Amino acid sequence: MPISLFSSPVFSDLYSDADLVLRLDENADLLHMIRFEQALAQVQGALGIIPKGAAATIVSALETCEIEPIALSKGTRSAGIPVPALVASLRKVAGDDAGSWLHWGATSQDVMDTALVLQAKSCLHVLEERLGKLIDALETESVRHANQLLAGRTRSQISTPITFGYRIAKWAHGLIDAEADLPALREKVLRVQFGGASGVNSAVAPDGPRIAEALAEELKLHFSPSWHTNRSNILALSAWLQALTASIAKMAGDLLLLGRSDIAEVSSGTGGGSSTMPQKANPVQAEAILTLNAIVQTSASGIAAAATPAEERDGARWPLEWAFLPQMLIATGAALRHAQALADSMSPNQDRISSGLKDHPEIMAEAASFALAKNGVARAEAKDIVAKAASQTDFKSTLKQLAPDGIDWDTVLDPATVIPACKEMTAEIFARRSR
Amino acid sequence: MPISLFSSPVFSDLYSDADLVLRLDENADLLHMIRFEQALAQVQGALGIIPKGAAATIVSALETCEIEPIALSKGTRSAGIPVPALVASLRKVAGDDAGSWLHWGATSQDVMDTALVLQAKSCLHVLEERLGKLIDALETESVRHANQLLAGRTRSQISTPITFGYRIAKWAHGLIDAEADLPALREKVLRVQFGGASGVNSAVAPDGPRIAEALAEELKLHFSPSWHTNRSNILALSAWLQALTASIAKMAGDLLLLGRSDIAEVSSGTGGGSSTMPQKANPVQAEAILTLNAIVQTSASGIAAAATPAEERDGARWPLEWAFLPQMLIATGAALRHAQALADSMSPNQDRISSGLKDHPEIMAEAASFALAKNGVARAEAKDIVAKAASQTDFKSTLKQLAPDGIDWDTVLDPATVIPACKEMTAEIFARRSR
Amino acid sequence: MPISLFSSPVFSDLYSDADLVLRLDENADLLHMIRFEQALAQVQGALGIIPKGAAATIVSALETCEIEPIALSKGTRSAGIPVPALVASLRKVAGDDAGSWLHWGATSQDVMDTALVLQAKSCLHVLEERLGKLIDALETESVRHANQLLAGRTRSQISTPITFGYRIAKWAHGLIDAEADLPALREKVLRVQFGGASGVNSAVAPDGPRIAEALAEELKLHFSPSWHTNRSNILALSAWLQALTASIAKMAGDLLLLGRSDIAEVSSGTGGGSSTMPQKANPVQAEAILTLNAIVQTSASGIAAAATPAEERDGARWPLEWAFLPQMLIATGAALRHAQALADSMSPNQDRISSGLKDHPEIMAEAASFALAKNGVARAEAKDIVAKAASQTDFKSTLKQLAPDGIDWDTVLDPATVIPACKEMTAEIFARRSR
Amino acid sequence: MPISLFSSPVFSDLYSDADLVLRLDENADLLHMIRFEQALAQVQGALGIIPKGAAATIVSALETCEIEPIALSKGTRSAGIPVPALVASLRKVAGDDAGSWLHWGATSQDVMDTALVLQAKSCLHVLEERLGKLIDALETESVRHANQLLAGRTRSQISTPITFGYRIAKWAHGLIDAEADLPALREKVLRVQFGGASGVNSAVAPDGPRIAEALAEELKLHFSPSWHTNRSNILALSAWLQALTASIAKMAGDLLLLGRSDIAEVSSGTGGGSSTMPQKANPVQAEAILTLNAIVQTSASGIAAAATPAEERDGARWPLEWAFLPQMLIATGAALRHAQALADSMSPNQDRISSGLKDHPEIMAEAASFALAKNGVARAEAKDIVAKAASQTDFKSTLKQLAPDGIDWDTVLDPATVIPACKEMTAEIFARRSR
Repeated sequence: MPISLFSSPVFSDLYSDADLVLRLDENADLLHMIRFEQALAQVQGALGIIPKGAAATIVSALETCEIEPIALSKGTRSAGIPVPALVASLRKVAGDDAGSWLHWGATSQDVMDTALVLQAKSCLHVLEERLGKLIDALETESVRHANQLLAGRTRSQISTPITFGYRIAKWAHGLIDAEADLPALREKVLRVQFGGASGVNSAVAPDGPRIAEALAEELKLHFSPSWHTNRSNILALSAWLQALTASIAKMAGDLLLLGRSDIAEVSSGTGGGSSTMPQKANPVQAEAILTLNAIVQTSASGIAAAATPAEERDGARWPLEWAFLPQMLIATGAALRHAQALADSMSPNQDRISSGLKDHPEIMAEAASFALAKNGVARAEAKDIVAKAASQTDFKSTLKQLAPDGIDWDTVLDPATVIPACKEMTAEIFARRSR
Repeated sequence: MPISLFSSPVFSDLYSDADLVLRLDENADLLHMIRFEQALAQVQGALGIIPKGAAATIVSALETCEIEPIALSKGTRSAGIPVPALVASLRKVAGDDAGSWLHWGATSQDVMDTALVLQAKSCLHVLEERLGKLIDALETESVRHANQLLAGRTRSQISTPITFGYRIAKWAHGLIDAEADLPALREKVLRVQFGGASGVNSAVAPDGPRIAEALAEELKLHFSPSWHTNRSNILALSAWLQALTASIAKMAGDLLLLGRSDIAEVSSGTGGGSSTMPQKANPVQAEAILTLNAIVQTSASGIAAAATPAEERDGARWPLEWAFLPQMLIATGAALRHAQALADSMSPNQDRISSGLKDHPEIMAEAASFALAKNGVARAEAKDIVAKAASQTDFKSTLKQLAPDGIDWDTVLDPATVIPACKEMTAEIFARRSR
Repeated sequence: MPISLFSSPVFSDLYSDADLVLRLDENADLLHMIRFEQALAQVQGALGIIPKGAAATIVSALETCEIEPIALSKGTRSAGIPVPALVASLRKVAGDDAGSWLHWGATSQDVMDTALVLQAKSCLHVLEERLGKLIDALETESVRHANQLLAGRTRSQISTPITFGYRIAKWAHGLIDAEADLPALREKVLRVQFGGASGVNSAVAPDGPRIAEALAEELKLHFSPSWHTNRSNILALSAWLQALTASIAKMAGDLLLLGRSDIAEVSSGTGGGSSTMPQKANPVQAEAILTLNAIVQTSASGIAAAATPAEERDGARWPLEWAFLPQMLIATGAALRHAQALADSMSPNQDRISSGLKDHPEIMAEAASFALAKNGVARAEAKDIVAKAASQTDFKSTLKQLAPDGIDWDTVLDPATVIPACKEMTAEIFARRSR
Repeated sequence: MPISLFSSPVFSDLYSDADLVLRLDENADLLHMIRFEQALAQVQGALGIIPKGAAATIVSALETCEIEPIALSKGTRSAGIPVPALVASLRKVAGDDAGSWLHWGATSQDVMDTALVLQAKSCLHVLEERLGKLIDALETESVRHANQLLAGRTRSQISTPITFGYRIAKWAHGLIDAEADLPALREKVLRVQFGGASGVNSAVAPDGPRIAEALAEELKLHFSPSWHTNRSNILALSAWLQALTASIAKMAGDLLLLGRSDIAEVSSGTGGGSSTMPQKANPVQAEAILTLNAIVQTSASGIAAAATPAEERDGARWPLEWAFLPQMLIATGAALRHAQALADSMSPNQDRISSGLKDHPEIMAEAASFALAKNGVARAEAKDIVAKAASQTDFKSTLKQLAPDGIDWDTVLDPATVIPACKEMTAEIFARRSR
């Protein structure tokens, strides 16, 4: 067991994600917090809230300053948050005179929440790109396999035929929803935080709102009243990550089933080796996605527990966001990466699929039942006839025997008749994609 | 312990909600499922998919049919879902001829998902109304108490002064976010479900999409490709209920603290009696909200567990939505009801608040610190001076003594100076409300 | 969607459990609370804490009193708990004189916690009986199928052969652990609660401990210091239900896979019908167990949220136990019932299993690899040889060709060689059962 | 936001724990996995399963081998687990001849599960020591403050008087339960894992059980049938950590309330500084405990999700244990550390407590009510008299006026009368401690 799957040298190649870690690790965190202080000085200087000279000094000093994360350790243990120690260090960097004007009117949570939002913004950029690419790939594959029949399964039992192309489109359906939600999500999540000690910017009154607006513009975030105790945006981000990862896991779960050695209708991924069984090709990527999804869904409870902060600011619930949100972002990113690998490598085994369909002629039971109904057989009777035929060795012969004449059973019982309907529904799904 | 807080004769007056129960109980459920079958026949008749006469018979027979929920019990135990038994009953109601055309091309999940969405729609109507009324009340109260000072508290410690009006606005902040999300939520959640056995409407091909569109129009829902295995909309509803209830609980948690008998700065609700302590007035409504919020947040994990259905349809994960979603809807509704009672009854105790502020002159420490900084004292030194003053008996005298001359300490240390900033931030919050 | 799967006339036959509902519904709850008051009067009378005559009057009046749950509704809404209203009613029943001595020195939570524990005790009796019967059945089936080969699957891939008997024993393993934990669980969970207003029995000092001990004896519970804010025992019960249901779900999940129509190696349960596909036999019992398990695991978070009560007694967290614990108890009971039905009906399909084994000769890859190693082939080389053979059409011939002479491949590659090892491990598992 | 609070250079001093990290990090993990392979070779050599010479070579080569965790990264990404890469490396270390006999008959999960158990064992040692020391400290403090009155609070309202000593004993109550559970927990959790590919040790049949028993003895663990898919022991560990941390959080939550600046009855911990408010002393340790508790309770859901593994071994659920269990162990350890700091520093403020009691004479309402009842006033009437008195300015005078003569109100209304009862209940709690 590692301390964290996301920072472990052993496991991080599998469960973590280098691109997102770069955006979320201590150095990135520090940079974004410093970026907040810099932007704050800049806009406060421009607005005449603090001396222009002090502002310029702060901006330039912070541009090049280098602070080691470890240097904030003691201060964080003592204050519960790294900001007091960070501000003290930055004031030294800016010098006594300018330093006095640094962090002017801000509270620790302003710094940390804004840094969090900036990190989230940067992560969303990566996730959006991957998500788009994944949907693209699924669309391509869906077209490629539009005529590849597959046994549909409902409640673990063979139901009616579908196409592999349609199954792929189903995987894309939730992803497309997630993609479509992104603009509104960004609008909601990416809020600048600037409220000061108790949220009303009393130290810089009456300039709080002006500063917050300028700060938002400077940091390319949205303006908002201070949201120290309104975590709707964090919840929205968490919910989006949950929905997205659940959709990715839907695909992984299906591929795990389709790739079982006793089903083997679709292969995907690069099989992982076993320490003792030479023949095994374990579904590492699909498994990792399912694990990552469970991590995301579990972590969301931690974010929910942070969503009811007490009074003006809450020191016990707030850190839960740092405990769980980075892991959710990274896990989602890693899941997307693995999903791409699966999408790029999946390959149906026509022989297995065909023999499966042949072994299960009753997959056309619904079609038979509707053919009977359309030919005047009452539904209950039709159901009985088909059920009886399905229990016999020769489905088609029994049907012919029991059914009224005049039904072209060869056509009715041909699984390929579902292909147009599958194409239609597939098209409906991809048509929903906002371009 | 009751079987369910939401159906218990003892507890439901407190934790449940009569209006929502009416929309969610077995009779409502049945009605909505029948409504689906009726609408399906109607549009299929109109589109010429089934005989017009059969359609008319079905529509009129179902209008007046009465089926007892208990009659579906045995069929549900056997099939795992009530639809096969319901359809059999309805076919009897419609008569053999027309009955054969009932449920034409639909699968059980089409019926149940659409009924769920119709129930959710009806519940959202109630929730929206209550939410709007609650925000209205909070806005009114926020204005009423705009000049009522209150000690701000961050991380459980007195921080800087705020107003009670601003605290109320903070409670509204998340509620306003939830209200603003409603149109997009409805757009996303209220999807008609019509996919047939494996989701592609193979039994009614190529008419599936036409039927689904007409059905959506008839039921005043949005069209969507079948979403048997894409539960994004259910997740979105769950996330909205989570965020809304978390915001309500923020208000309740704060009122619980403000109403402690050792703080007693704001009273609210109708105090509940004790079995043994005659003097007690327990904060029943605030407690109930916190309990309901925990129920909602916990239940959301159940909805998340349903969001990765296998293959074409999943019989094990799907029922989790029925297990948890109704409880989330009812709990949110009950929480809104209690919050309204709190909003309508809350009353600050000026004496307690004033004496609290007087006992804690160091509440103006931030103001003092900024006054010193503006008067040329370096930040670190200013902080030391103020910290020293805060540790002495007479905060103001010590400050005067240690500070450079020329600062008007009476003005600086007057808590009322924060009132304009509080009004400003309050206005910002309510300005975000979409009207 | 029903208000509650556990009280719904439509769904309760499937998800709920009549035996446990009898022990947990409002009437049972009321009876146990009344039983507490009766026992309290009895022991206080015997100890001379209250007048013997009053005690006798209370005991006999409560024996026959009938209170409708609905009568406590208004009082519960007002007080947050039913006890004040119940005590008022019971005092009327006992008459003014004796009534004054009823509930003497007790607090509401004493009544409700003790009633909860009594209900839990009664439920544990039912669960234990079912659990024992289920393990018995699995042991019988395990013996019956001790020679029935089955393809082992690890990480969804065929691994090495096992027997169906051993697989059944695996299902029993966790159940046996749960059974073995029962005595310690009862010792820990079944604590009498008697602490009075703030937990120290101040109203009846110095007789609190004496009363509590006598009460424990009278109610056949264990004595404990008051545990209003130490919910270790509730957590222990919740954890036991989690572990037990997880083990039942292990069995259900495996049977769902084995019963898939594309695997079909073991059938079990009574297949549920479809509304549209006549041939389908849906795995209703296995699905229900998986659903119930997810309900139990989700609900456990609600119990955990109740485990950190504030100060002397907590009105917001405590009700979470009533919200989730009954559902956990019932769900576990229903899961056991369905598991019994599965255990009693499961039947392997030898043809399918045999043809599966024949189709996958590489299931003996590990055996081949060890045979090579025992015959002097280095492990890496042995692995390569076997992997190569596994990728060819004829596993055995390729092995013969690539391996050193002298290995009796017919014996090595005979799946039946694993039977003794399976029997051995099976015996180890059942040997752990405490009798 | 850091990647992980537990490995972050900024946050780990606060949320993580150096002692436990040492037992759980990659190096420790690797060492324990190597220890497994070493012990396996040793016992297999001793039992004559593998050549004694090879065993000796393996044992000695592994004693000194040094493998960098990063070296397993690529292999882990490819196989999903580090064992195949590790075994390949160790075989090189042991040389071709002996290496062939390394990992003989074991499967990856045998190595990783046993390493996990060894790590857990080592962590439990640390946790037990801290837990014992914490209970010791609480017992000492409880005695020290046995006569220090404190207002009891139930449901956030002042209830009856208690002592601070008793409140401390309440904190210890759950901790003592956790301590008492340790022997049974160890017995249950610390199981050796040795089952081979599919759990029946087919590769080393019929010697599996003999090897497993010897391995258990060698590693000082308990023997068990293979438990690849029976995670009862992991669940038990998780449940114990949940219960323990919940109890620690009970203490922290209470100290947070008692230390609020508007209550200020008990101070504890070293107050953390604010970035903007010089006077603030934030309750960093208590907050950190509450955060850690929420992390533990949330993570437990991840462990529960791992408790239903499919078939012989499950590659998707199993890694959830590595994702969440180390964090639970470390968080519990860190919480214990902070709790010790709080226990060692807590100090009641007698003035605040006394003036609080004086301000709330109605804290004696229950006592007054029982005094009336003992003097022949009917309960309902007594309740009314006391409630009326509690609503008047002078509680005692009003009581005297309304009550029958002959009650010594000075004695009845003296809070100090509860001290003996508090001592008694305190003694009961600590008496349960197993020594």
